Amino acid sequence: MGDLEIRRATAADIPAIVGMFADDPLGARRESPDDPAPYLAAYERIAADPNQHLVVAVRDQRVIGTLQLTIVPGLSRRGATRSIIEAVRVHADERGSGLGSRLIEWAVAESRQRGCHLVQLTSDATRTDAHRFYERLGFTASHVGFKLQL
Amino acid sequence: MGDLEIRRATAADIPAIVGMFADDPLGARRESPDDPAPYLAAYERIAADPNQHLVVAVRDQRVIGTLQLTIVPGLSRRGATRSIIEAVRVHADERGSGLGSRLIEWAVAESRQRGCHLVQLTSDATRTDAHRFYERLGFTASHVGFKLQL
Repeated sequence: MGDLEIRRATAADIPAIVGMFADDPLGARRESPDDPAPYLAAYERIAADPNQHLVVAVRDQRVIGTLQLTIVPGLSRRGATRSIIEAVRVHADERGSGLGSRLIEWAVAESRQRGCHLVQLTSDATRTDAHRFYERLGFTASHVGFKLQL
Repeated sequence: MGDLEIRRATAADIPAIVGMFADDPLGARRESPDDPAPYLAAYERIAADPNQHLVVAVRDQRVIGTLQLTIVPGLSRRGATRSIIEAVRVHADERGSGLGSRLIEWAVAESRQRGCHLVQLTSDATRTDAHRFYERLGFTASHVGFKLQL
């Protein structure tokens, strides 16, 4: 088994990322892996924004994980910049391997390096395994996450 | 009582915004209204990022509310762009006046205009009045919000 690399995603990684999104109890209902156009358009928006860091975890030239880190400057907490982690996915074949921890640890280290004082994320209330995972990594479930579909 | 205006915040609004942050059970412990420097530096970072929309609600030339809206392009949900609302505050004298609703309605309308498919926010688990407020405005408390202080 080769070394793990976490690197910036390129347009060529999009099909593998979308495949992971769709291979998920919640994602199966809301993704369209057979229609790449909206994902490629979104990739261009992400790549154009210097505060977005979309990464993939790669081993043996295979994409096996992903997450998106967003840097958000803010005024509260004495002008603290925070980061937000979204869209964390680990390939089904790699679950339980520690890859999820490696991805979050990457995001935390990157946030620290970019001067963030806080890392935050939300997790669907039904993903109870994910909640234990984030608590083991030192996160506190201190907030309620609200969403409004437009 | 004059008309309410919701407009982009300027550097001159920062003391009033920070005053509202500090006049809050949680904010009182983590803000420093007597030291403007970190807030002004943060304001410059916010103003330089076209995806940040820091606004104030003003009536009779007085700042009585604020929020920050962040536009986040993303890959999941068929390449959906989402928005994140942070740092919502209403001046103590104006609570119960409907101003909070006006601010959130502004953020939702702005998100829609900018092509967002989802608006999200987190609220401290202790702010139970705020939770009812967001549910009345159509938000769903579907997620758990995790934070890690760096």
